[in-house]
Amino acid sequence: MLLLRRCTSLTRFGPLNPQRLQVPPAVTSCAVRLCSSSSSSSEDQRSYQRVTTSSSFRYGLAGLLAGTGAVLAYGLHQHKAEREDVGMQAREKSSPLPIISQEEVTKHRSLEDGVWVTYKGGVYDITEFVAMHPGGDKILLAAGGSLEPFWSLYAVHNQEHVLEILSEYKVGVLNLEDLKKQQSVKSSDPYSSDPERHPALRINSLKPFNAEPPPEIVSDSYITPSALFFKRNHLPVPQVDLASYQLHVEGLPGGVLTLSLEDLKTRFPKHTITATLQCAGNRRSEMNKVKQVKGLNWGIAAISNAKWSGARLRDVLLAAGYGPDVAQWACHVQFEGLDKDVTGTTYGASIPLNKAVSEEGDVLLAYEMNGEDIPPDHGFPVRVVVPGVVGARNVKWLGKIIVSAEESSSHWQQNDYKGFSPGTDWDTVDFKSAPAIQELPIQSAITTPADGAVLDRSDETLTVKGYAWSGGGREVVRVDVSVDGGKTWQVAQLRSSDKGQSPEPSPPPGRAWAWKLWEVSAPFPADAQELEIISKAVDNSYNIQPDTIAPIWNLRGVLSNAWHRVKVRVREEESED
Amino acid sequence: MLLLRRCTSLTRFGPLNPQRLQVPPAVTSCAVRLCSSSSSSSEDQRSYQRVTTSSSFRYGLAGLLAGTGAVLAYGLHQHKAEREDVGMQAREKSSPLPIISQEEVTKHRSLEDGVWVTYKGGVYDITEFVAMHPGGDKILLAAGGSLEPFWSLYAVHNQEHVLEILSEYKVGVLNLEDLKKQQSVKSSDPYSSDPERHPALRINSLKPFNAEPPPEIVSDSYITPSALFFKRNHLPVPQVDLASYQLHVEGLPGGVLTLSLEDLKTRFPKHTITATLQCAGNRRSEMNKVKQVKGLNWGIAAISNAKWSGARLRDVLLAAGYGPDVAQWACHVQFEGLDKDVTGTTYGASIPLNKAVSEEGDVLLAYEMNGEDIPPDHGFPVRVVVPGVVGARNVKWLGKIIVSAEESSSHWQQNDYKGFSPGTDWDTVDFKSAPAIQELPIQSAITTPADGAVLDRSDETLTVKGYAWSGGGREVVRVDVSVDGGKTWQVAQLRSSDKGQSPEPSPPPGRAWAWKLWEVSAPFPADAQELEIISKAVDNSYNIQPDTIAPIWNLRGVLSNAWHRVKVRVREEESED
Repeated sequence: MLLLRRCTSLTRFGPLNPQRLQVPPAVTSCAVRLCSSSSSSSEDQRSYQRVTTSSSFRYGLAGLLAGTGAVLAYGLHQHKAEREDVGMQAREKSSPLPIISQEEVTKHRSLEDGVWVTYKGGVYDITEFVAMHPGGDKILLAAGGSLEPFWSLYAVHNQEHVLEILSEYKVGVLNLEDLKKQQSVKSSDPYSSDPERHPALRINSLKPFNAEPPPEIVSDSYITPSALFFKRNHLPVPQVDLASYQLHVEGLPGGVLTLSLEDLKTRFPKHTITATLQCAGNRRSEMNKVKQVKGLNWGIAAISNAKWSGARLRDVLLAAGYGPDVAQWACHVQFEGLDKDVTGTTYGASIPLNKAVSEEGDVLLAYEMNGEDIPPDHGFPVRVVVPGVVGARNVKWLGKIIVSAEESSSHWQQNDYKGFSPGTDWDTVDFKSAPAIQELPIQSAITTPADGAVLDRSDETLTVKGYAWSGGGREVVRVDVSVDGGKTWQVAQLRSSDKGQSPEPSPPPGRAWAWKLWEVSAPFPADAQELEIISKAVDNSYNIQPDTIAPIWNLRGVLSNAWHRVKVRVREEESED
Repeated sequence: MLLLRRCTSLTRFGPLNPQRLQVPPAVTSCAVRLCSSSSSSSEDQRSYQRVTTSSSFRYGLAGLLAGTGAVLAYGLHQHKAEREDVGMQAREKSSPLPIISQEEVTKHRSLEDGVWVTYKGGVYDITEFVAMHPGGDKILLAAGGSLEPFWSLYAVHNQEHVLEILSEYKVGVLNLEDLKKQQSVKSSDPYSSDPERHPALRINSLKPFNAEPPPEIVSDSYITPSALFFKRNHLPVPQVDLASYQLHVEGLPGGVLTLSLEDLKTRFPKHTITATLQCAGNRRSEMNKVKQVKGLNWGIAAISNAKWSGARLRDVLLAAGYGPDVAQWACHVQFEGLDKDVTGTTYGASIPLNKAVSEEGDVLLAYEMNGEDIPPDHGFPVRVVVPGVVGARNVKWLGKIIVSAEESSSHWQQNDYKGFSPGTDWDTVDFKSAPAIQELPIQSAITTPADGAVLDRSDETLTVKGYAWSGGGREVVRVDVSVDGGKTWQVAQLRSSDKGQSPEPSPPPGRAWAWKLWEVSAPFPADAQELEIISKAVDNSYNIQPDTIAPIWNLRGVLSNAWHRVKVRVREEESED
């Protein structure tokens, strides 16, 4: 795991303010970019890494390395930097900087008027920094106000070098009266009411909570127990009061349809599907080994399989007035979660209308997972399950459904969860140029043996196990396994149920939503002391995984579906004396 | 091109008959297999190549090498072997073999009763050979009768060594009276009325006609001119009399619906789509270089793009009585062509019912190609166009549509056009274990420059062009091109129209049926004298082509969609004196 790798060199970056007004914003944003496109609440957890890409760049910003965003987010939530109370220290020293009122700060809320923020009594003009912010222009949400509520939400900011960067932008101190008012609004930990989690989970980030099951137990269960199902939260888990819970369906001719959970359960037929969900970042850690990417450092288990029950989205849309007329102008169905950041911005995503309304799309407004109420981490009381489609569109804690001519405008739809060429970097990336990920490509991985395992040749055969899945309802039809680094291949046995249980019925064409587990036994290759074991799967459109990771490397580290390879050592039998 | 490679060693194979009765059929068919699964009228054109797979095999049959089936079929259609009139020679020499009546021959039409055939007056007991026949058990169609009509259809048999094999099975001579009767039924060349073809086409086999356009002109036209559209015939082109042409729709509650071409044109709305068709064997020649496969040795141009107009299959099925009740039991729609072999067996294939009846499936009963009547080579008067699906299911010269619970039982659906693991050989293949190819995977190829081209460094940039397409309506969203063997990648410009014309409107999700042409200009890498240029495409499910061919090699040489690579040399500028 790369999880605990630490940043080794944090270089202060030189004074920007004196020069800043001489540099037109366009030049700045072109010459200097920070290595993340997107909100810290997204996959990347923000990385304050600076890349200098132009030889004409003259601020000497190189070296502001902070390791991966995931690393930073993890283990650093104790807010080490409290001792570096930049604003308060400045005040104690009778700073020569001007005293500024909150009213004045509030006037600076845009790139045109300047972007000012406060932090512990200091006032900062961060206009210059906006284009460099790892979390993208989401930083503007704090414009004219205090940083504290954002930083308590996104733990990645709680690092010394972030405060160092901030200090360079200081333009004044907040007047005492306004500071006292601010301090009287206590910032509480928005994650304090997150649920308990299973101790076996491997944590990628605590706040928001992201974790995966250990690989060796993944293929033990065709249906992943809910407690071990991978967790991928972008924000704190919202507390939903069932008595007041309402789901709003908007954008249809009949006006807004509002449904309680009870309505959803009683007014629409209950439909059950078995569907695998996979995070776009599954297996990102392998991509990270090629070249650093931005995002949570997932292993091979940001994927799980469950039985979901609920109302069909199609049925709900029809009840809300969907019909052929709507199809003339609408193209997308947007979803909004009840999970919010401090500004009230909710998680959001959308799917194509044809997937949402198709009889064969099987999109659910699910209220049960594995036969029980959906647990809080998975979207209680209602989540969307969009089978065959990337996890990010399976919006949890569903609050609103909007039928629209447009995709969701959310950060996660527009500026995240997209794939790019390995030649595209943060200087050249244009998020508009790539489609939002919907269906995922063919995937497989080896769950047993683990990479680095030592196997005993006295075992007669080598048993290899894993999972395979493809997006878009494409059924996995074959998994090839090699124990000699790809020279020869064996076909694995596939299964669609837990051992000893009868297999699930074969899905109709285009509706294979669930993974297949697989297993193969091979004789140990003679003499080999180290083996490279490989899996590659094929779906019924005969799509196949690419051989290697480097050519599919992309700056966000998504869609990592090359052949899965594990290396194991073979221990020879001891000679019998 | 491997096209003109010739077989170099044809070894007689030793007498089988004396031993044959001592060898149980199962042993024979297990120890000796011939390298083709399927009918010669299919992709493979039959190869009389023998592979010995068991060290206990004792007939010394190795060496009966005949090169690829495509090679054999090509250029040998002059029926060299006429001078080797085995049967007649035997008669002239007053053969000691018994004289046998046609009536007696006719009794031997099965493996149980023995399989006898006649050829030019000789009678042959080929029971033993059935399991070894490169064309599979289709040989049984000739059982109890004469081989001539089959051999005139499948030119691959017209070779000396085939007659040598046959001679080993001789058990008698046909009585004179029956021979005269046979000879009075003149066998004519069933291909004699095939249409004229464009001389630019590169011919893979003449009878049946299979040819592709030269790669350098493929990407000149977004819409491929019909004359240059690749041709893939399994049988002679049928002569269809429009006055009597009828299309039969069967299997629906309303009984058989019979439609004339005029009915099809007037009773149903005319629908037009632009769709790319690709042969499952496109780029097989690259697979052949890894290890020999069976089938026509296609280059990169067994793919073309056209505008197709016709009635929607959905509309016709609805008119014929299709409804929700039918969907309860039916799963497939079968098609039969009017192209027949001598036994009257027609070309056949099927597609899943949901593709056929979906409003978004866009399956056409097409009567126009590029704005004109469909040319004879492409299915005049009516062919099925199943966009997003392998060419083999786009049945030409359509005669019959059958809604069914079952897939087509045709050879081409059951025992051909399927993909297997690289570890599967003709001894282990089980055609039932793999799904019939329907949707094809992501594909791209470089059309310019050609492999082996010499480029001039004095040209300022290197221009690379090609095509990209994916099956299942998945849109090509990106093509990455490398001019340094995959170290670095550039993103190509895509286009969906001919240059200077406005691009076609963006297709709805899941209905991108047409290819994209692409082009990229790159500076010449410094100092390189040889370049490896590579293309790889990505579709909107983010499926990507695999890096290399060997791991997707399969015994039929289908689904060859690895990165396309061409090597070119760079000529340095001459020094200016």
